Amino acid sequence: MENDTIAAVSTPAGEGAIAIVRLSGDEAVSITNQLFTSKDLRHVDSHTIHYGKLMDPKTEEKVEEVMVSIMKAPKTFTREDIIEINCHGGMVSVNRVLQLVLREGARLAEPGEFTKRAFLNGRIDLSQAEAVMDLIRSKTDRAMSVALKQMDGRLSNLIRDLRQQLIETVAHVEVNIDYPEYDDVEEMTHDLLEERTRYVKSEVQSLLLTAKQGKILREGIATAIIGKPNVGKSSLMNILAHENKAIVTDIPGTTRDVIEEYVNVRGVPLRLIDTAGIRETEDIVEKIGVERSRQALQDADLILLVLNGNEPLSEEDAALFEAAKDLDIIVTVNKTDLDQKIDMNEVSQAANGAPVITTSLIEEQGIDELEQAIADTFFDGELDHGDLTYVSNVRHIQLLEQADDALNDALNSMEMGMPLDLVQIDITRSWELLGEIIGEDVHESLIDQLFSQFCLGK
Amino acid sequence: MENDTIAAVSTPAGEGAIAIVRLSGDEAVSITNQLFTSKDLRHVDSHTIHYGKLMDPKTEEKVEEVMVSIMKAPKTFTREDIIEINCHGGMVSVNRVLQLVLREGARLAEPGEFTKRAFLNGRIDLSQAEAVMDLIRSKTDRAMSVALKQMDGRLSNLIRDLRQQLIETVAHVEVNIDYPEYDDVEEMTHDLLEERTRYVKSEVQSLLLTAKQGKILREGIATAIIGKPNVGKSSLMNILAHENKAIVTDIPGTTRDVIEEYVNVRGVPLRLIDTAGIRETEDIVEKIGVERSRQALQDADLILLVLNGNEPLSEEDAALFEAAKDLDIIVTVNKTDLDQKIDMNEVSQAANGAPVITTSLIEEQGIDELEQAIADTFFDGELDHGDLTYVSNVRHIQLLEQADDALNDALNSMEMGMPLDLVQIDITRSWELLGEIIGEDVHESLIDQLFSQFCLGK
Repeated sequence: MENDTIAAVSTPAGEGAIAIVRLSGDEAVSITNQLFTSKDLRHVDSHTIHYGKLMDPKTEEKVEEVMVSIMKAPKTFTREDIIEINCHGGMVSVNRVLQLVLREGARLAEPGEFTKRAFLNGRIDLSQAEAVMDLIRSKTDRAMSVALKQMDGRLSNLIRDLRQQLIETVAHVEVNIDYPEYDDVEEMTHDLLEERTRYVKSEVQSLLLTAKQGKILREGIATAIIGKPNVGKSSLMNILAHENKAIVTDIPGTTRDVIEEYVNVRGVPLRLIDTAGIRETEDIVEKIGVERSRQALQDADLILLVLNGNEPLSEEDAALFEAAKDLDIIVTVNKTDLDQKIDMNEVSQAANGAPVITTSLIEEQGIDELEQAIADTFFDGELDHGDLTYVSNVRHIQLLEQADDALNDALNSMEMGMPLDLVQIDITRSWELLGEIIGEDVHESLIDQLFSQFCLGK
Repeated sequence: MENDTIAAVSTPAGEGAIAIVRLSGDEAVSITNQLFTSKDLRHVDSHTIHYGKLMDPKTEEKVEEVMVSIMKAPKTFTREDIIEINCHGGMVSVNRVLQLVLREGARLAEPGEFTKRAFLNGRIDLSQAEAVMDLIRSKTDRAMSVALKQMDGRLSNLIRDLRQQLIETVAHVEVNIDYPEYDDVEEMTHDLLEERTRYVKSEVQSLLLTAKQGKILREGIATAIIGKPNVGKSSLMNILAHENKAIVTDIPGTTRDVIEEYVNVRGVPLRLIDTAGIRETEDIVEKIGVERSRQALQDADLILLVLNGNEPLSEEDAALFEAAKDLDIIVTVNKTDLDQKIDMNEVSQAANGAPVITTSLIEEQGIDELEQAIADTFFDGELDHGDLTYVSNVRHIQLLEQADDALNDALNSMEMGMPLDLVQIDITRSWELLGEIIGEDVHESLIDQLFSQFCLGK
């Protein structure tokens, strides 16, 4: 079934000027040709565009005015024949076209199946395929650059390079095992083995050091805005969203209640937690209940705690500080436009070293300082200069950590003077673990599971 | 400024596999070429597709992997050079590409500006342009067919034909005025004038007869589900939505609260009013207040009044019947699975001729009958066989009504024996009014206003 022809809508759902139904597979051209009345598509050049009408062969009714793009194998995304039917971007229109190509013999593509075929047909490796989805989901320019580089093969090349070093080392060990009569080989092998292993381990650790920032760039900082009623939480939310062009997305597969809102603060993507709740009621606790708001705090990477400068610190405030302790927190003392009745020394003490910013959200004062504090918290003032290779994918991070452990085991065995063939087992394991990142020898079930997280039509 | 190069994102906002940035104008190719690193696009054939990378010329940073489609004037939608840049469908990616083409000299297109250019450059007339948008917004197959026919020029041709008849008639009148010495010409002219005018008027009226159905197909039937608490309103909503694949759209420009939900009942699109309200609280009155629910009833084309068969008719029910009187109403007596305590004679009397359906929504009984009643109410049992030309656009309907009035005036003047040159004025007016439908001699401000209702990138 791997070579049957698949089809899906490849543009986002919703009303737009253009929507695309994409087909890939041996029958892509012939299926489209059965519907296309204006020209015989079987004999046109690759990478050409054809205007015409689609007709339902059953009813002979005209279905749509379309532009058909033909790209013939192997120079395509999937390395199979690809057809893209550009139709008018209404939901009815695009569904009608999709239904027709399915009736003529295409199969509805599974999520990510186009990219999966690109992987299975050897056009890209697994980490590149994963980067495709990261690229689509990226919430800031910087996150997109990271994904783009990964898609270009930066991470893959690095991993391949490290694996090459490991396999050469293993080869040396094998020479030693096969020809134990040469003493000098053993000597050399042991030193080289240790040196090489340390080098690969240090590279793996450098990559792991980028993981925190990489994950932030990729997923955004889960941010909860907390505070007593009426301190300005929704004003803060609105200002952050307004100044930074919020991207609001419904989480697919859940009810409309769960809304994720992303704001891009100086290159740092904040994922605001349960913003719908805050916006509507101005009080996350009131809206989602105490239990769920504790959960929100648990899930947060960053807490923005808002205080009212016009009132003394209260027990409620203290409780919020208590709930947020051990978490990354930025304290905002709001309402500097009113009389200051809060004791800033008490605030500093409660903040316990966390940044304290004073704002008048109503007069838009202090916003710059707050945004800078947010950026500082996560980049420690050092912004990347676009040239780092980040790891951001949880799967990659876990594999790198496991590879690091395996290399550690190898080094320990060496120190303890264990036989080289035992050391070799650990090194081979790390070689395999790194291979999984780029999709060498991975289980089919893992591949299925990875691609199922893609969006439809990709 | 009419020939500058415009650009916009032409796919719906959101995450998808593919997004398109579209450019139209003299500089479309050269602007794209400044960003495209893989090939010189200025010398490639029209209607071809090119894979490559976009680079930011300022930073020399790679921005995206894209497919560029080139379509050269005049065989394009706008009759200008068109470039479509297919990029990865994330919001960041597509915005980045858009920003780059804007920086290189394109101007952000206004909503509908691509279609406006197609109109201004004579590729389509105004009613065809309007059909483009109707097509995108259509909620059912049938609505789409109507739009497609209008886009194909069906309505335009009919209107052109009627105008031709009128202009020939006017020409005859002018012959008569210019050569009053020929008595027989006058005689002939008067009869012919009346006959032609009556013919055109009857055609205009036939078109107007399709307006109700046309409007329904285009906009959906605004439907309110009303009833006492706990009679099964939200069950009814869910069943209608579930069985008929609801299309939920946020109304652009308003808060997230206002949600329109469309369900397609046997080809009849129901636009369910304030469904969010009903779903959440099961009681529209409770949720949106008495004032607003009266308003909802006012705006409704169809009322689905739900009664509880397990209770006698109450005063509340009577009040709802009263509120809905003079409106199209279908009465549903629900909960036939329980003891029937309602007096069906009373219900019939209250319904006053409106259809009464008995259902057990919980056991999914009676749904077919209800759906049939909905379809019957609006198509009187007669479904179109796909061959009618519908008018559905409010602007068209108003112009046809005004043309009808003008033709009436002409006929009245003839009957009263008024001089032919006065009659000629009324006929010329109807000729002009019909012309406005297809965009002859319409004001620029009207054109601007019409296209501004389009979606971006079309």
